[in-house]
This record gives sequence, structure tokens and C-alpha cells, in this order.
Amino acid sequence: MNKAALFSQIQQKSSFLCVGLDADMDKIPAHLKSEKDPIFSFCRQIIEETADFAVAYKPNIAFFEALGPQGWETLQKVLEVIPKEIFTIADAKRGDIGNTSKLYAKAFFEKMDFDSVTVAPYMGADSVTPFLEFEDKWVILLALTSNAGSMDFQLINDSEGKPLYQTVLEKSQSWGSDENIMYVVGATRGELIGEVRKVVPNHFFLVPGVGAQGGSLSEVAKYGMNSSCGLLVNSSRGIIYASPEKDFAKVARFEAEKLQIEMKELLDKYL
Amino acid sequence: MNKAALFSQIQQKSSFLCVGLDADMDKIPAHLKSEKDPIFSFCRQIIEETADFAVAYKPNIAFFEALGPQGWETLQKVLEVIPKEIFTIADAKRGDIGNTSKLYAKAFFEKMDFDSVTVAPYMGADSVTPFLEFEDKWVILLALTSNAGSMDFQLINDSEGKPLYQTVLEKSQSWGSDENIMYVVGATRGELIGEVRKVVPNHFFLVPGVGAQGGSLSEVAKYGMNSSCGLLVNSSRGIIYASPEKDFAKVARFEAEKLQIEMKELLDKYL
Repeated sequence: MNKAALFSQIQQKSSFLCVGLDADMDKIPAHLKSEKDPIFSFCRQIIEETADFAVAYKPNIAFFEALGPQGWETLQKVLEVIPKEIFTIADAKRGDIGNTSKLYAKAFFEKMDFDSVTVAPYMGADSVTPFLEFEDKWVILLALTSNAGSMDFQLINDSEGKPLYQTVLEKSQSWGSDENIMYVVGATRGELIGEVRKVVPNHFFLVPGVGAQGGSLSEVAKYGMNSSCGLLVNSSRGIIYASPEKDFAKVARFEAEKLQIEMKELLDKYL
Repeated sequence: MNKAALFSQIQQKSSFLCVGLDADMDKIPAHLKSEKDPIFSFCRQIIEETADFAVAYKPNIAFFEALGPQGWETLQKVLEVIPKEIFTIADAKRGDIGNTSKLYAKAFFEKMDFDSVTVAPYMGADSVTPFLEFEDKWVILLALTSNAGSMDFQLINDSEGKPLYQTVLEKSQSWGSDENIMYVVGATRGELIGEVRKVVPNHFFLVPGVGAQGGSLSEVAKYGMNSSCGLLVNSSRGIIYASPEKDFAKVARFEAEKLQIEMKELLDKYL
């Protein structure tokens, strides 16, 4: 999917919501566990009920990988029930030497048909660029994450006072463009999103940490929105586990719609 | 596997060789391609012929992941034919927020029975520590990698002149010990291995980059060996693709033995 198509969908739905599919056997409603493929059943129902309000889905690959080979079958089935116009993110945090990253890219872009994959920057240019050789496919590069550990290395200042995440933003811009690179920018630090936006005015950000992790949607929009929205705000647990009962998908729909209504207001205000 | 058992195996075999299983359908001998599971067949024969000289095997997970769900079945079968006394490394470069890293750990340590997994440090403490909660299992943390892109971020000096990889070494030491953390330290920069050894005197290093990537084994031993050897030196292509013919496994055996003989000399010299 290219940037214009993504923006068009954002305008059409008045939403920049990404629903995170962290489908955990220990957390899905009990009545699903007797089904043949409980995780697929759970994700399918979540997708069916939230697709009106979501512009992206983000399966968390660890949750599927932990199920063994069957998990990858399930992941493929989940991918197939996501409507074609919705952007898909393999949240995999991959990244290795060039010939290896190329195989990860093939796994997610060819073997499966994801629009994007999250990539860790530690190994530098040649660990990222193999993902950029696929047309209308995206790298979503970790810049400033929303977890406590983001303080350990991402905020270290270099000799000129520039934090590591900013060097990641600057260097990576020469590897691709705002047509094939997005950045992970955590919502737990509202003011920092503005700093990131100054460095990369045109790129999309994938913003985790709204909801369960405590970030504020209005702060994210205030500091992060640009003329093509430039934001995909993810919510996982706050939507998919909003109810542990048989009504889980309906309640997920309600939670997704609540966020979409808030997003519409922010789009009207800033766009 | 614990550190004592690993060192004992190194002494017994007079070797610190890790064989990297980068099993690529495009590179394995043509005669294998008509078999039911060519990648398994290839890896099995490599393992059978090199097990006398190797103390560790390192399947490169991308190569299996790129095959789809079947690739994970193959990986499991490969893992099962590795002799139990040999250390196994899932070269996966994983790392995510805590609850997600926990699932990656379960995938590699419980669902499969790897001794260790390679982890990227960018997301900090809580992305690494979930892997350290499994007894006799190891994190092999990226510190200084052997690829060109390692220059992009790993060598950036902070305001006190300390390179990022060194901060990774220092901070991560408080997350675990030399009984459950090793470090990836590339062989392409011999003198730097000595710098790393000063910071972490007791930890094992996984050293890629010898052979195809141009690193020198004697330099690695000179700068990196400690009193319990402290080195696992990996060779992938130089062994597994030494011959593209039907004799590939025998030639792999020959190449592995050549390295083992060199390693014995270095162990005799420095240990």
C-alpha cells in the first residue's frame, strides 16, 4: 500500500486507529478455547467488528510464533481476513545482516503479504535496506519506544548532545523516504513526539502506548499530526481485551468506535 | 546448558567452533532438492559430519521463517538431530516490550528447546530480562556486530567518549551474569575484541565474521580468549557451502576439522 492510499483511508474513515492483535491464549474469552483454532477465531471476530474504525491491524508476531508452526498457519489466516484496503503491520522487530534481513523481508512481504514490518535499527543501514527493496512495502523503524527500557540506550546523548533516537531518525532518512519508512514513536512521552516531528516532518509514526500504557491521544495529535495525518495510533489490550466474555467483539467494536470518534475530532481540529 | 558444561565440551573437543546453519534453498546442492525436506536433509548431514568438531550450532532463524509454517517444522527437526551435549543458538535477533519478549523466550526455550537466543538491545532492560528467567538458558546480546552497518550506531560516542556498544556491555551486566548472558562481538575488528574483553572479562562472546566476512581466528583468540575460553567462533558459509556437490557434507567436515585444528593450537597457546 502506498502513502496516498493510506491517507485516503484515514480521511474516509476519519480515523488513524491501528488495532494491535496481541492474541494470547491466556487472555482470550474462555468460550473460544474449545474451537479448532481459538486464536484465529478471536482475531477474526475482532477484525470483523472493528474494521469500520481501524485503518491498520498489527499482529504481534511473538504471540503467533509462541504457538509453534501452527501459529504461522493461524497468522496467515488472520492476514487473509483483514480487508484489503486496511494497512497491515507485522510487529516483528526484526533486523540482521543484509542477506538475513532479506530473508525476513521475503517471509513477511512475499511468503505472507504484509504491508509493513517493524525493524530494530541497532545493526544499521544494511540490516534495514533489504526491507526497502519491495514496492509499496514499508519498514517501521524503532526510534523512540514506549517501554521503560527505552531510557537505557535511545536517550543517550552523543558528544554533540544529540540523543541516539534522533541519530536513528536522521541517518535512516537517507535509506528510504516517507513513502517506505515510518517510525515507532512512543506515546508515553508527549513532548518528545514534537521533537521527533521536527526531525522528520513528513513521515508516518506508529504510536504505541496510548491506553494501557498511559499515553494521551490528544497530546499525540497535538505534537505529532502533519498534513497527511502522519499518525497510526495503536491500541491493543484496551480494545481486544475490553471484555473477557462472549460479547468481547461487540465491546471491542465499542472501544474502537470511541477512539475513532476522538480521532475524528482531532483530525477536524488539526488537519 | 550451563557455563561449566560448555567449557567442559570445549576442552574435550579442543574446539570453540560454532557452525552456522544458514540453510538456503538457493545454495544447497542440487541433488537434495528432490527430497521431501531438502533443508532438513542438508542440515542433518552437515550436523552428522561436523559434530565431532563443533561445540555449538546456530540455525539462522530467518532462513527457516522464510519457508513459512513448514520452515518451523524443519527447524524443530533440525534441533532434534543436534547431539544433546552441543550448545544450540537460535540466531533470531529478537527483542520487544516485556510481555512480548516473554513470548519470544517461550517460543525458543519452551516450545523449542534452544539453549540460547540472540537478542537486540535497542529497547533496553525490559526487552532482554524476560529471556533471562529460564534456568540454564542464555541471551546472546548484540554488542558489536560484524556488518558494515555496525558503524552507524554501535560506535557512536556519548558525551563522555564512550561508544554505544560499551554502554550496552556495561548496562546489561546488571541484568544477568556470565552464566546467562553472552555477547555478539564481530571478528572483523580484531583490536576492538580486546576493548570488549576489558569491559566484560568473564562472559562468553559469540564471534561471527571469521572466514567469509574476513576476520582472523588468531586475532580473535589473541584478544578475546579468557580462562574458560570465553569464545564461540562461528563459521557458516565457509563450512556449509564449501562444496556445492554431493560431497558437501564430507567437505564441510574437512573445513570444520581444519578450523578445529587451528583452534586446538590457540587453546594450547592461550588457555
